Amino acid sequence: MSIAKALPLLEADGHGPAPCCAPLAERPMTAEEAETAAPMFKALGDPVRLRLFSAVASHAGGEACVCDISDVGVSQPTVSHHLKKLKEAGLLTSERRGTWVYYRVEPSVLAAMGRLLAPPPTT
Amino acid sequence: MSIAKALPLLEADGHGPAPCCAPLAERPMTAEEAETAAPMFKALGDPVRLRLFSAVASHAGGEACVCDISDVGVSQPTVSHHLKKLKEAGLLTSERRGTWVYYRVEPSVLAAMGRLLAPPPTT
Repeated sequence: MSIAKALPLLEADGHGPAPCCAPLAERPMTAEEAETAAPMFKALGDPVRLRLFSAVASHAGGEACVCDISDVGVSQPTVSHHLKKLKEAGLLTSERRGTWVYYRVEPSVLAAMGRLLAPPPTT
Repeated sequence: MSIAKALPLLEADGHGPAPCCAPLAERPMTAEEAETAAPMFKALGDPVRLRLFSAVASHAGGEACVCDISDVGVSQPTVSHHLKKLKEAGLLTSERRGTWVYYRVEPSVLAAMGRLLAPPPTT
């Protein structure tokens, strides 16, 4: 199941992105919510993928192709493989232009993940 | 390596928690930063662990023992196993009181992870 498809609530309120679920500390997550969110965390749970994701997210214009990313110490096919995994998790989108596939961060998904991690309210 | 130990910068500025690293979208993550942060994301990359973490984070008083968590559809030993994994990743702390081990969310680590996911600046 594509996570991108599983996050229809991202624009549900008409006021831009909203998280798929309540913050983790607000109420116990349901099984369905956890099945939706876990693959996104898992995709970032690998050091090489985390660096590649950061390389794309911080690249000029907010997008990068494999040709822009060569300094993480893995081969180009491995870079391509990990970028595909990040895309499958809904964290990146991609577009082919000429020879290269360009990857772009999905800011609404990133914001939704960040909101999940909102610290518990101080009591 | 324990992640809790790997995040000494959390209180480095004397003004409460700060992220271990710059937001992913601000600049490319270094290999060392990625090695530190990836296990935290990985720990939340499993649906059952994500639900257990949420159950602890949202429990009254911000802490819970295995005895409080029984509705995620896995056995108590499995719950214990996953809570231990979350603790090893630095996301929970624990304290034994009498028969039970009580787990508590580490809010500074949660905040640091959330800050890593800050969306890219709009250009």
